Amino acid sequence: MKTSIKTFLIALVSMAMFSLKQDKPTKIIFFGDSITQAGVNPGGYITKMKEMLEKQGIKDKYQLIGAGIGGNKVYDLFLRMEDDVLSQKPDVVVIYIGVNDVWHKSSHGTGTDADKFGNFYVAIIKKLQSQGIKVICCTPAAIGERTDNSNQQDGDLNYYSNIIRGIASKFDCPLIDLRKEFIAYNLKNNTSNKESGVLTTDRVHLNDAGNQFVADLMMKAVVK
Amino acid sequence: MKTSIKTFLIALVSMAMFSLKQDKPTKIIFFGDSITQAGVNPGGYITKMKEMLEKQGIKDKYQLIGAGIGGNKVYDLFLRMEDDVLSQKPDVVVIYIGVNDVWHKSSHGTGTDADKFGNFYVAIIKKLQSQGIKVICCTPAAIGERTDNSNQQDGDLNYYSNIIRGIASKFDCPLIDLRKEFIAYNLKNNTSNKESGVLTTDRVHLNDAGNQFVADLMMKAVVK
Amino acid sequence: MKTSIKTFLIALVSMAMFSLKQDKPTKIIFFGDSITQAGVNPGGYITKMKEMLEKQGIKDKYQLIGAGIGGNKVYDLFLRMEDDVLSQKPDVVVIYIGVNDVWHKSSHGTGTDADKFGNFYVAIIKKLQSQGIKVICCTPAAIGERTDNSNQQDGDLNYYSNIIRGIASKFDCPLIDLRKEFIAYNLKNNTSNKESGVLTTDRVHLNDAGNQFVADLMMKAVVK
Amino acid sequence: MKTSIKTFLIALVSMAMFSLKQDKPTKIIFFGDSITQAGVNPGGYITKMKEMLEKQGIKDKYQLIGAGIGGNKVYDLFLRMEDDVLSQKPDVVVIYIGVNDVWHKSSHGTGTDADKFGNFYVAIIKKLQSQGIKVICCTPAAIGERTDNSNQQDGDLNYYSNIIRGIASKFDCPLIDLRKEFIAYNLKNNTSNKESGVLTTDRVHLNDAGNQFVADLMMKAVVK
Repeated sequence: MKTSIKTFLIALVSMAMFSLKQDKPTKIIFFGDSITQAGVNPGGYITKMKEMLEKQGIKDKYQLIGAGIGGNKVYDLFLRMEDDVLSQKPDVVVIYIGVNDVWHKSSHGTGTDADKFGNFYVAIIKKLQSQGIKVICCTPAAIGERTDNSNQQDGDLNYYSNIIRGIASKFDCPLIDLRKEFIAYNLKNNTSNKESGVLTTDRVHLNDAGNQFVADLMMKAVVK
Repeated sequence: MKTSIKTFLIALVSMAMFSLKQDKPTKIIFFGDSITQAGVNPGGYITKMKEMLEKQGIKDKYQLIGAGIGGNKVYDLFLRMEDDVLSQKPDVVVIYIGVNDVWHKSSHGTGTDADKFGNFYVAIIKKLQSQGIKVICCTPAAIGERTDNSNQQDGDLNYYSNIIRGIASKFDCPLIDLRKEFIAYNLKNNTSNKESGVLTTDRVHLNDAGNQFVADLMMKAVVK
Repeated sequence: MKTSIKTFLIALVSMAMFSLKQDKPTKIIFFGDSITQAGVNPGGYITKMKEMLEKQGIKDKYQLIGAGIGGNKVYDLFLRMEDDVLSQKPDVVVIYIGVNDVWHKSSHGTGTDADKFGNFYVAIIKKLQSQGIKVICCTPAAIGERTDNSNQQDGDLNYYSNIIRGIASKFDCPLIDLRKEFIAYNLKNNTSNKESGVLTTDRVHLNDAGNQFVADLMMKAVVK
Repeated sequence: MKTSIKTFLIALVSMAMFSLKQDKPTKIIFFGDSITQAGVNPGGYITKMKEMLEKQGIKDKYQLIGAGIGGNKVYDLFLRMEDDVLSQKPDVVVIYIGVNDVWHKSSHGTGTDADKFGNFYVAIIKKLQSQGIKVICCTPAAIGERTDNSNQQDGDLNYYSNIIRGIASKFDCPLIDLRKEFIAYNLKNNTSNKESGVLTTDRVHLNDAGNQFVADLMMKAVVK
């Protein structure tokens, strides 16, 4: 008798939780730089994801929030994590950072040392995970789309991507390996070795194909 | 009658607090880069301050703690503030940072943008002050000791010093203006326009005269 | 008798040369970067000099030629000296270079080392002087107009200006010390410590006042 | 009859030329940076080539001269070409430059823009070829030996190597593609993805295996 009551109560609670879940969509914050800032614009990768969710009839299950600021590097994310992410109590955070950490070395003299890039990246993950937030990592896609490894920052971008891959693995974070995917896509589609115009407008920022490509890859990782 | 008891109790508590204060020295943390890391070595500026306090017979009133790490920039301080400073519950924190934020622009491509330098500096002060900690600011002394404004980073070092001066004023922090003092000292003592060897060994790190000079300036600000 | 004939002939040749000189204006080439490239535009400093010569009624005595190319550093001048200067057989060359050698360090990672800057500068002067060409040197005026020595490149610009001053003195070249003059002008006229807008449009390139200021200084050195 | 005389004369001239050649060794100048400067040291790649020529019994047929100076970039070669190369009237010049043009971007802010790298490279070849000198080009071997395209300058080094490949082809210069050869060698021999220690001591300068590897490749191109 007692057991049946217990079973009944568990079922009741489960149903309540389920309905609760129904009511409360999964809140996903996209935490990044100018690429993510543009992601909420019409045609942006976050906007495209919303449209895809709507088409699939599951738009109420997910709340997608852009938290990208132009020029951000990993330590900028760390600085504004409390205000822009934790305060919103998300379920999932997608970290998409690294381009400026590499790029600004040569354009402004203000990139991020590789070891410090790793330290801040880990600090962000630890803090988010300590709040029960699921963290998804992305590698930085591209600074230049040439396919013969001759974009100025290719080596460095690969190195920082390796750092992220190692951290994602260590901290059990799903990885959206944009760097790998962009290289593969360009090898197939950029046969004239163009510097930009395939997935980016300007070597870095996403054109429409790029936004769609990223949206597709993100969807696979985010929507289960 | 009630009033006199209250007055008596207040006096009692005050005496207790005073004796408590007697027992517990003022804990001062020096928070910085390699210059501060070397400050705790024999002959270092923190070591010299301890010796000066001992000579003055007040060494028990102050606990001086070095928290300098080579290569640190302002955001490194922010990252390790919790572990290296707040956990020690200091009464006073002396922030001495900025050389690498400027210098690493040209030597590694990994300096700190001026606006971000300010943002992190403010974030550190706010956090420390929110814990009731007194914050003392320092301007970065020198990268090169030439007196005709021809050291490569003179302009930038002056600019970042201006940022610190503005922040110190805004947040009511005492300022130890090392930059200004070093320039004045060199104008008097570096008549042959040498690049180093006056207060530094290598344009940046302090020689014995430099450590003494900094120790003297710090003492004035720290010991009341 | 022989002597009188000789004297007569000398007088004749002198007259012929004089009339030749009358016919042939002094050819002056302005050899530099984008500042000089813009100098031949309407309102540019070379255009203004031409107008000043015309007003003074001596426009036929001077031929002013702009040979400035945007982005040029000292070694670019050396590379194109044969084609752009020597081939034109000028009487005077005004070298106005140095801004990009300093500036591109932080904006592109492609500035010029100070010692090499000096080496190329000297090589240009030697080559020009070996052809009997009079060389006039200019210091690079400004990268930023703040008056408190807080423009990022102030130190480096002063250092490279010192190099030029030393070379000009060693090789007996008249010096137009634009750096010194710009600083003095700004100390008087830029009382609000603005970064640009006094003599420059964008910290580097000359506005109308800047073009007039440079034209005036050049005139003093060039027109005797 | 006429024909037989002609044949006889040709044979005579050939013999004379051969004996002339016997007397006068082919003079080869290695024109480069610190890697070439070290090439004349015991164990250096030029020293090894001399030893190889001696073993092959043809050391009298070649005169190998090192003309490498540490820190040199392409424009430094152009500046000292007259004094260090043309004045020696060599038969062959091996140009081995490019590492510092790329590397110094991030280490000193004084690398060389890609387009200017090409311009100076072409200017050197044109001048040498105009004097009847045979020019052999080399691509810059390595800044870091990791095999997964994650050395910081990999992209840029590949880009500058592409420039050299294009120029060598256009000006009919034999190419020693050190970059390609080093990558292939490391893919085979550097299975642990080490940053240095395979062909270099410090990512850039040649260890003994590196000097031997370069000597072997140079021999194939130089000794016919």
